[in-house]
Amino acid sequence: MKLNIALLAGDGIGPEVIDQAVKVCDAIANKYKHEITWKPALTGAAAIDAVGEPYPDETHEICANADAVLFGAIGHPRFDNDPSAKVRPEQGLLKMRQKLGLFANVRPTFTFPSLIDKSPLKRERIEGTDLIILRELTGGIYFGERGRKDDGNTAFDTMTYTRGEIQRLAKKGFEMAMTRSKRLCCVDKANVLESSRLWRETVQAMEKEYPEVEVSYEFVDATAMRLVQWPKGYDVIITENLFGDILTDEASVISGSMGLMPSASVGSKVSLYEPIHGSYPQAAGKDIANPLATVLSAAMLFEDFDLKLEAEDIRRVVNKSLAEGIVTEDLAEDGKSYRTSEVGDWLAKNI
Amino acid sequence: MKLNIALLAGDGIGPEVIDQAVKVCDAIANKYKHEITWKPALTGAAAIDAVGEPYPDETHEICANADAVLFGAIGHPRFDNDPSAKVRPEQGLLKMRQKLGLFANVRPTFTFPSLIDKSPLKRERIEGTDLIILRELTGGIYFGERGRKDDGNTAFDTMTYTRGEIQRLAKKGFEMAMTRSKRLCCVDKANVLESSRLWRETVQAMEKEYPEVEVSYEFVDATAMRLVQWPKGYDVIITENLFGDILTDEASVISGSMGLMPSASVGSKVSLYEPIHGSYPQAAGKDIANPLATVLSAAMLFEDFDLKLEAEDIRRVVNKSLAEGIVTEDLAEDGKSYRTSEVGDWLAKNI
Ligand SMILES: [Mg+2]
Ligand SMILES: [Mg+2]
Repeated sequence: MKLNIALLAGDGIGPEVIDQAVKVCDAIANKYKHEITWKPALTGAAAIDAVGEPYPDETHEICANADAVLFGAIGHPRFDNDPSAKVRPEQGLLKMRQKLGLFANVRPTFTFPSLIDKSPLKRERIEGTDLIILRELTGGIYFGERGRKDDGNTAFDTMTYTRGEIQRLAKKGFEMAMTRSKRLCCVDKANVLESSRLWRETVQAMEKEYPEVEVSYEFVDATAMRLVQWPKGYDVIITENLFGDILTDEASVISGSMGLMPSASVGSKVSLYEPIHGSYPQAAGKDIANPLATVLSAAMLFEDFDLKLEAEDIRRVVNKSLAEGIVTEDLAEDGKSYRTSEVGDWLAKNI
Repeated sequence: MKLNIALLAGDGIGPEVIDQAVKVCDAIANKYKHEITWKPALTGAAAIDAVGEPYPDETHEICANADAVLFGAIGHPRFDNDPSAKVRPEQGLLKMRQKLGLFANVRPTFTFPSLIDKSPLKRERIEGTDLIILRELTGGIYFGERGRKDDGNTAFDTMTYTRGEIQRLAKKGFEMAMTRSKRLCCVDKANVLESSRLWRETVQAMEKEYPEVEVSYEFVDATAMRLVQWPKGYDVIITENLFGDILTDEASVISGSMGLMPSASVGSKVSLYEPIHGSYPQAAGKDIANPLATVLSAAMLFEDFDLKLEAEDIRRVVNKSLAEGIVTEDLAEDGKSYRTSEVGDWLAKNI
């Protein structure tokens, strides 16, 4: 198969972890006789520095014409504590999601047997957890009208949803639940918010199209509790953008394997694959960042092109590296740790 | 001291847990020669059933003229799955907070040595946790303009904050931090939301008035992670209404003692004291609900009237009941459990 993959390394540790995923993908291409053409493009703070825009038009052209996008991370701390900054790296992320129509973020939370004791939760609480949070990604308060009034002394943001946006996301959730344990949980704040009531009534109306799926409804604050108490209770969770932002990050730490969690952002034409961790600027350039989440994101990419053998091969070699202790310092138990580039080399060699 | 206390039992288990707090307060009044006049009033679903309003004017009159309000819980499941319901119990809560000007919710999270193994978190993660979340309670998206457009197919909610609202809450946070470990964390989503940027710039401008307080800033999704990973890292957290709703509930389960956590809602004239747990309708009327959070909320009430001996006496008797196993079924280890009313009787007798 020929694959054109847009390569957006981004900021912080992005370039380093992306490099390892490229090594692994190239090894896969070599072994299975695929032809991958990498199309590097600028994004985030790196793009602001180069062309003054966190998601430049040239980058969008490359992504829109690619078969898939492999993405590192964006964000730089010099923007965080500067409320006056006009252009922010994260705006690139939002713009990219919107322009590529990436309407759903797929975030699995599962455990690795060898890493389960790294979880902050007790083993009996977390063992066997296998859930997916499907977060709406192009609507809600991150994209609604915002601004200031009263000489800057009043600020507002608007959370808006249309029935169509909710249906599109929920449909994906129902379909996903059908391939799994057939349990869907819609998370909202329907006891207060009008947009949440639209979510709930829309999902309720769709229930009859999926009679096999058992649907439940929870308030977001209750879910924030239950994810810590009984994560095993969930199969597929669907929720709006801001709630999903908070809950996916909370879910990411309960497995104890945050550095390993991949994700996909699904669009109607092109999908994007990225590690869930951020740009981790403190570690940038030190060759110490864990590349496994990016490597596992590449496995999700292959799987979506129905290259299941290739995806399995990547997962096998990742598991092997964990079992043999070929890991970066965040996962090293007493023993030796390896550099980011060494882990990437080892993975590629063992494909 | 003479105390007029408005007594809002509310829905579900509210009346039962309130009854036990009244017994304990009456025992305190008797022992320390105070005169408590209880002023019962309707709220929540109970008030909707009786007068069609979840926070009737008569109830507000009683609260506004009381020295303090002791509150149970409100909410009834028959409203949750009915998006068409025009009047909801929770609207009573919002209306009460607004009309009484309860602008800050004080939510401590701490551990009880005898209950620490009930935490879903590993002992080393949670032991020693002692944090307070100060949640803004009368602004933000729960009170902003909301509605429908396009024949009901688009719904919106508005998150609005003024500089004054933020200053009032932050001032309380700085003052609270000064009496504790002098660390304040402002939680927002300033990388995306305009209202969050107003939060951040307002708190940043106040830093110089409290030079001893070490201030940090975090994004809400990061805090949702870190509360599970390293709750000991926090001292006082200040945040807006919706974020606070989610984070306080998440924080409530990490100690393993959710059924015991009290809270206060601070107003300029009158404050309200309530357990953090909800109305727990499944347990209503069964005499099995844990009354300790309500009893400990009464302790916070006495403390705010500078009746420290009385507050200490209540905490002493609660700890004694835990140590001696005079507990409801949620806390019973193998052994015997007691009914709600039996625990209340025992506490009152031991004052
Ligand atoms: Mg996030
Ligand atoms: Mg809540």
